Amino acid sequence: MTGFSDYAQTLRPRIEQALANAVPTTVDSRLAEAMGYALSGGGKRIRPLLVLASYRALTGNHDHPALDNIVCAVEAIHAYSLVHDDLPAMDDDELRRGQPTCHIAFDEALAILAGDALQTLAFETLSQADSLTAEAKLALIQTLAQAAGAQGMVLGQAIDLAAVDGTLTLTQLERMHRCKTGALIDASVAMGAIAADADAPSRRALENYSRAIGLAFQVQDDILDVTADTATLGKTQGADAARNKPTYVSLLGLEAAREHAHTLLAQALDALAKLPGDTQPLRLIAQYVVERER
Amino acid sequence: MTGFSDYAQTLRPRIEQALANAVPTTVDSRLAEAMGYALSGGGKRIRPLLVLASYRALTGNHDHPALDNIVCAVEAIHAYSLVHDDLPAMDDDELRRGQPTCHIAFDEALAILAGDALQTLAFETLSQADSLTAEAKLALIQTLAQAAGAQGMVLGQAIDLAAVDGTLTLTQLERMHRCKTGALIDASVAMGAIAADADAPSRRALENYSRAIGLAFQVQDDILDVTADTATLGKTQGADAARNKPTYVSLLGLEAAREHAHTLLAQALDALAKLPGDTQPLRLIAQYVVERER
Repeated sequence: MTGFSDYAQTLRPRIEQALANAVPTTVDSRLAEAMGYALSGGGKRIRPLLVLASYRALTGNHDHPALDNIVCAVEAIHAYSLVHDDLPAMDDDELRRGQPTCHIAFDEALAILAGDALQTLAFETLSQADSLTAEAKLALIQTLAQAAGAQGMVLGQAIDLAAVDGTLTLTQLERMHRCKTGALIDASVAMGAIAADADAPSRRALENYSRAIGLAFQVQDDILDVTADTATLGKTQGADAARNKPTYVSLLGLEAAREHAHTLLAQALDALAKLPGDTQPLRLIAQYVVERER
Repeated sequence: MTGFSDYAQTLRPRIEQALANAVPTTVDSRLAEAMGYALSGGGKRIRPLLVLASYRALTGNHDHPALDNIVCAVEAIHAYSLVHDDLPAMDDDELRRGQPTCHIAFDEALAILAGDALQTLAFETLSQADSLTAEAKLALIQTLAQAAGAQGMVLGQAIDLAAVDGTLTLTQLERMHRCKTGALIDASVAMGAIAADADAPSRRALENYSRAIGLAFQVQDDILDVTADTATLGKTQGADAARNKPTYVSLLGLEAAREHAHTLLAQALDALAKLPGDTQPLRLIAQYVVERER
């Protein structure tokens, strides 16, 4: 394994297969199609990779069958949030990863419903992770719910929407991102640790890692929004700036934003030192988050 | 207890208090407001009453503290579905129970998010029903997820939307309603039975009860859509007919629809005969479902 791309490539068939199996086939075809479209929309699968890499950093492998349930659950939540976030009443985006967004490919009503059903699927999938104890399954459900709901991801989206044409301080911007994207990244890492039945010091180390890369991910997104072109990005370049949304770049300037991302990367790598398993995948993910070009 | 209204009145403070406690207070105020608005929007609280009455039909009381978690979970799912169903891209309703719908009282984006967060809250609340075993909590989560998702409520909404200006046979109409409203009514009753640790024959009897009243509820809704006036109904009278949606009345005619509702009522009451507890509340709810005027 020489780098992030190789690592991601190795795990991609497993992740895509798990996701393809997740949507029940007996469902009404249009709804199932829209759910499958949202779930199979490509993307880097950072959250699934974090689940697997977190487990590997604790155990040296990622063979546990419950990891497939966790991968599906976290990606279903992520996919639903993108579908709803792209709606005309929200960010009104027509392109996502170079493809028509769900409400363009289908229609608005079906996109709302597909998002709703993907959220349900996430919790159902965790409740069926039968290679784990009932207590562990409940811990997974609690962790995901707290990350996804009104104190996590959805709160972040609400703060983000309220901030259009408004102003946020750096502290407020960090809180928004910790909720909007950071909470689910934290949950991905934490859920890998739950599957591994990790001890408290390992969980704390992983929390420090995930908090740092969660913010770094957003800082890099803001940098790419002003530096990458639309074709590379797969979404409209400058979209945040055009909406007058506060970003790390607008608040810090481009150079200081880049420095901030690298400081966070160093924090993430530091946190991995005491983990007992194979930490190389988590290291590769952290480097990728800060060095990616789209 | 002389009738449904008295029964509902007696339990209303408990139900409203449980719902008021459910929305976390540390949440961003606008998001929490919209969630609270959707959850406190009045209504008959049929699903919470079914949870409590089901437990009572098995045990003779409804004192178990986990019932409050179940009540909140089932009503949070119901409330989220109404908020999303009322959106312009879906049914485009501006009134719900005589009050502005969530996207009118707030805005569309916040209504989407509040609905999303209410769904998460449902699963989080069940995972915290700590007076139950981990196995029972998981059974609740599975039951609710199966009822709410792509094989239950959301599927029913997708079929319903696809049926506007289309045609459905009576069989297709029943399937749509079994999913759209029946699944969550079934789940309410089943979740009361899970809290009571009911045996298999009791669960089957309760399933027969809930399937009958679930359909009866919808038949009566269709009857009221053509017979009640807008003020009594609290929503626009004739709305379904105006959208050319198939209904029991359009398929069967008014008189046959009324007969169908009473046949279903008789089936529901029959199913209660073998239950060991106090079945009077379930009886009152069944009668109310068919005899209500709004």
